[in-house]
Amino acid sequence: MKYWIGFDLGGTKMLAAVVDSKNNIVARKKKKTRAHEGSQAAVDRIVETIGEVVAEAGITFADVAGIGIGSPGPLELDTGVVLSSPNLGWENLPLRAIVEKKTGCATVVINDVDAGVYGEYLYGAGKGARCVVGVFPGTGIGGGCVYNGELLRGTTTSCMEIGHMQMVPNGPRCGCGRLGCLEALASRLAVAAQAAAAAARGEAPALLEASGGAVPAIKSGMIADAIRNGDKSVELIVKNAANWLGRAVASSVNLLAPDVVVLGGGMVEAMPELFVAGVSEVLKDAVIIPYGKGGVPVKAAQLMDDAGVLGAAGWAKRVIGEKE
Amino acid sequence: MKYWIGFDLGGTKMLAAVVDSKNNIVARKKKKTRAHEGSQAAVDRIVETIGEVVAEAGITFADVAGIGIGSPGPLELDTGVVLSSPNLGWENLPLRAIVEKKTGCATVVINDVDAGVYGEYLYGAGKGARCVVGVFPGTGIGGGCVYNGELLRGTTTSCMEIGHMQMVPNGPRCGCGRLGCLEALASRLAVAAQAAAAAARGEAPALLEASGGAVPAIKSGMIADAIRNGDKSVELIVKNAANWLGRAVASSVNLLAPDVVVLGGGMVEAMPELFVAGVSEVLKDAVIIPYGKGGVPVKAAQLMDDAGVLGAAGWAKRVIGEKE
Repeated sequence: MKYWIGFDLGGTKMLAAVVDSKNNIVARKKKKTRAHEGSQAAVDRIVETIGEVVAEAGITFADVAGIGIGSPGPLELDTGVVLSSPNLGWENLPLRAIVEKKTGCATVVINDVDAGVYGEYLYGAGKGARCVVGVFPGTGIGGGCVYNGELLRGTTTSCMEIGHMQMVPNGPRCGCGRLGCLEALASRLAVAAQAAAAAARGEAPALLEASGGAVPAIKSGMIADAIRNGDKSVELIVKNAANWLGRAVASSVNLLAPDVVVLGGGMVEAMPELFVAGVSEVLKDAVIIPYGKGGVPVKAAQLMDDAGVLGAAGWAKRVIGEKE
Repeated sequence: MKYWIGFDLGGTKMLAAVVDSKNNIVARKKKKTRAHEGSQAAVDRIVETIGEVVAEAGITFADVAGIGIGSPGPLELDTGVVLSSPNLGWENLPLRAIVEKKTGCATVVINDVDAGVYGEYLYGAGKGARCVVGVFPGTGIGGGCVYNGELLRGTTTSCMEIGHMQMVPNGPRCGCGRLGCLEALASRLAVAAQAAAAAARGEAPALLEASGGAVPAIKSGMIADAIRNGDKSVELIVKNAANWLGRAVASSVNLLAPDVVVLGGGMVEAMPELFVAGVSEVLKDAVIIPYGKGGVPVKAAQLMDDAGVLGAAGWAKRVIGEKE
């Protein structure tokens, strides 16, 4: 039996999984990304994690048909070079070549959110749809689109950079250096920063106690807890983020007319109803494409952490399988 | 020899052409649309124009292999029903069935801008590109995208409604009823309305004299003349429109990573340098997809009025040809 490795590289954590030929995950391994330690350290941790998950599955690299890696930031698809990833601090990193050299396995690199959306298309909330638009707000906000079974792509690079759609002229500064990007208004970092400010003003005492007012300490689960415990100012911050997300999704729907919009990532996992309702409400008014009575179907991702690894492994199977 | 008819239905004028099997236009016929006279009158004029162009070419309907119609507004592609066209005032008009009944020829209906973009992809500024994003500011603002030789589409409807991307919350009112759509900021109507206001304020005396300050009287050529004659306030209005257009194009480029952006329509034809420069300037800063030194290639459409008819005929040939 041949195995595939799916790897999901996030701004804060990395997850590796071994997938068997029936598409079942037989082993998983998770580590922190520690982007601040630099690209060399991160690559070492990636290769180490892949080695560990292979051992965990009780197989060797000879049993691995290929590796699929989902990585953030624009990247060169055919060479597997990560061109620029503001949230990881990477520039022109030949990720595919490094991993192939260290493991001896054929490797493909795709955008991390493309991997998640492809996973949801294969097995989750977008299963079998002709066109799926996926938006995953996390440390940043990534998008992906599966169209007639293919991931939409640029000629050399990945695309669907919905996080850098300008939502409002002169809006807050984004990690990419521009002003008013969706990511600067609705990512987990943007929400955490606003929540930390609210906490500092004394408006969110429980969150202040839990986080000390430190932005990196404010996780999605903590935000969800604050809302569940009746913290109205945090709730307003998240609803506003969902509203901005809805506006960007509306523009994407007006362009691509998908059959389903899939929302994923840590914040959506922690507060799925809030995000699905917030985005759906905006789409009801802002979409000009005729969708009939039910409007645009908006769903929360179903595969949680597994979406990225299953999608990356599935794409590797498809691309490397096609080459053989 | 078999012939194809391409038909371009605009908010203000309609153009029919007979195209021979070598893709040469052998006859053309142009009429005003007169949308205010209602859909029945417009449909009668469409059929009349098709009859006239067939006579002009010295052929009969028996020589016509198929008709392709580019029509504004979201439409149902497989049935050829125009679902809603704010600029024509149409709702659920079965255009394909009507034209097939009156002419006896197989007919396909696509979005008017899709037709124009497909024409530019076949023979013009987007020739042979893997991915072309076209944006045509006219009475409204339509978009189209050819991806791997296919027009991007929704499952039942057309898509790429870039004119209804919300550019600014609480912006000016759009013909679709929403606020802040690109169309309300940068269409010919939006530009004409701002120019008419400037004329009324005494800032554009030549334009006031030429138009009497009436919005419908302010044509693209008149706007171009005013700028050529040194009218700074009209120039600022057009540059601002090109800037808004650039912002919407930037969002589309960040999503679709096209190989070329093609700008078309009457305003761009009248002022190609101004629009290409204005859009390119915004893209330089606002696009996060790596394009290398030259940036995103932006070109003015090359086929002028013929883009729509050639694209519609070409699409009919492709779709109806495939069915046979």
